[in-house]
Amino acid sequence: MSISPVNLAALVGYAFEPFDFRYTERDASLYALSIGGASNPLDTSDLRFVYEQHADGFNVFPTFAVIFPSRMIDVLLSGGVPGLAFDPLMLLHGEQDTEIRAPLPTSGVVTCKPVISAIYDKGKGALVITDVPCYDENGTEIAFHRYSMYIRGLGGFGGERGASSEVNVPPDRAPDAVTSEQTMPNQALIYRLSGDTNPLHADPMRAAFAGFDRPILHGLCTFGYAARAVLRTFADNDAARFKRIRVRFAKHVFPGETLLTEMWDMGDGQIVFRVKVAERDEVVLSHAAVELVADEQRVGA
Amino acid sequence: MSISPVNLAALVGYAFEPFDFRYTERDASLYALSIGGASNPLDTSDLRFVYEQHADGFNVFPTFAVIFPSRMIDVLLSGGVPGLAFDPLMLLHGEQDTEIRAPLPTSGVVTCKPVISAIYDKGKGALVITDVPCYDENGTEIAFHRYSMYIRGLGGFGGERGASSEVNVPPDRAPDAVTSEQTMPNQALIYRLSGDTNPLHADPMRAAFAGFDRPILHGLCTFGYAARAVLRTFADNDAARFKRIRVRFAKHVFPGETLLTEMWDMGDGQIVFRVKVAERDEVVLSHAAVELVADEQRVGA
Repeated sequence: MSISPVNLAALVGYAFEPFDFRYTERDASLYALSIGGASNPLDTSDLRFVYEQHADGFNVFPTFAVIFPSRMIDVLLSGGVPGLAFDPLMLLHGEQDTEIRAPLPTSGVVTCKPVISAIYDKGKGALVITDVPCYDENGTEIAFHRYSMYIRGLGGFGGERGASSEVNVPPDRAPDAVTSEQTMPNQALIYRLSGDTNPLHADPMRAAFAGFDRPILHGLCTFGYAARAVLRTFADNDAARFKRIRVRFAKHVFPGETLLTEMWDMGDGQIVFRVKVAERDEVVLSHAAVELVADEQRVGA
Repeated sequence: MSISPVNLAALVGYAFEPFDFRYTERDASLYALSIGGASNPLDTSDLRFVYEQHADGFNVFPTFAVIFPSRMIDVLLSGGVPGLAFDPLMLLHGEQDTEIRAPLPTSGVVTCKPVISAIYDKGKGALVITDVPCYDENGTEIAFHRYSMYIRGLGGFGGERGASSEVNVPPDRAPDAVTSEQTMPNQALIYRLSGDTNPLHADPMRAAFAGFDRPILHGLCTFGYAARAVLRTFADNDAARFKRIRVRFAKHVFPGETLLTEMWDMGDGQIVFRVKVAERDEVVLSHAAVELVADEQRVGA
């Protein structure tokens, strides 16, 4: 199956039907716990993200924003975008770019308005770029996501190839900080409760069908671990200093493996990082950076 | 503060206002994960309790039934029972007896009708016994709970002392089976998402106020671990063979500690057990048993 140039032209600019995501403090806490929050008994600073009665106030962990558009993936996988039909196992989440634009409410309704902003022809597959602005109940844009999704088998339709980006490559020196956290054997089963219920992350048979020995961890779960590592190391675990995160999903992680996050402080709040699986010495998140803002520029200040 | 004999007479037979508990497969999965479900990567038999798309069907883990009456504890702690006012820190959950009477729906609404069935005067405190039948949407009684709650400081009102029960004492021989599972440092924070939001299990300051070095695990979380151990060891992890569980909460557990469950097969489906914390060699659940039914008497068969 392939997209003809005519279909391609029709798809760029395609606007999904806007949809709402409703959440409570319990959902935000579950998310924070599912990315390893509060798993260090010697560090209670994560309590603000998992305990709604916290004396200093409850905060939503910033990368919870990636949960808002979960339904977009369901629409895409179920053939809900006219002219874009494919086997769900052919979809790879290639890159994620998420920017926090205003404080995330501790509960409420968020409206997501995804638009396909570009489609590139990579030869063996198509790279679909989707932009998703997310709005709070007052209509304020609180988060903006750019998803890069690679669909194997859909290339060769004669479209533009697009530039290959080599941003956020670590400098040629030792990292300024490294953290290590072991994920739990049931980590993916906990993470999926936040909305990504793809069987690839739960069902051994489906994982085998996709070529894996066992179910793999969600790339966005590893992404959450990395965000926690950077925020703790460089911003006193202060959610309001978290501005933007960009990553490339390079390899899979198995639940139970240990994530090494290597971080380089590039100045001006730019923290370049990469994540390796310690047991296999493989890079799983690359071309990655978090942008932090200074204390006086905190989100919402 | 103490209860006069007049108040005591009024309280026995007190019926709480019935209340509903609404849940989804996601809630039942979260509960099963919060008691250590699916934490052994070599054993996929727990998947039925945590993965709603399971090919063999989704099952609610039997002890999820103890979550149904969560609101009763809130009512009790907030002084909602007329004539029964006390400092919440004075309440100890002494014993729990839970019987599964019909298959638990995978989602839906359960109605709970708690009644205070007895109050004993233990001298330094009062022992309040509450019976809670729980009904599904068809009015079928699916679970029956008996809570024994000890309230320090409320004794000496001149009531009956009640018998001290020494049931389910392990026999004088080595256990027939022992399992060991380490809890996670954030176990109580995950468990509390199912409904018991007592700060004692999350807030270091409140835990210190109650005399603990740090927040303690919910007794009913340890109870869930033990139920899992028995069901796996003696009933092929088959939820429909789980009939009844009774325990005494003897000591606290800190999140991160290792639970040793020692089990004795007494015949006729009676499994006596106790749970120790390995790191401190202390018994935390005592006078405990699970009643299993034979394959042909499975709940709902």
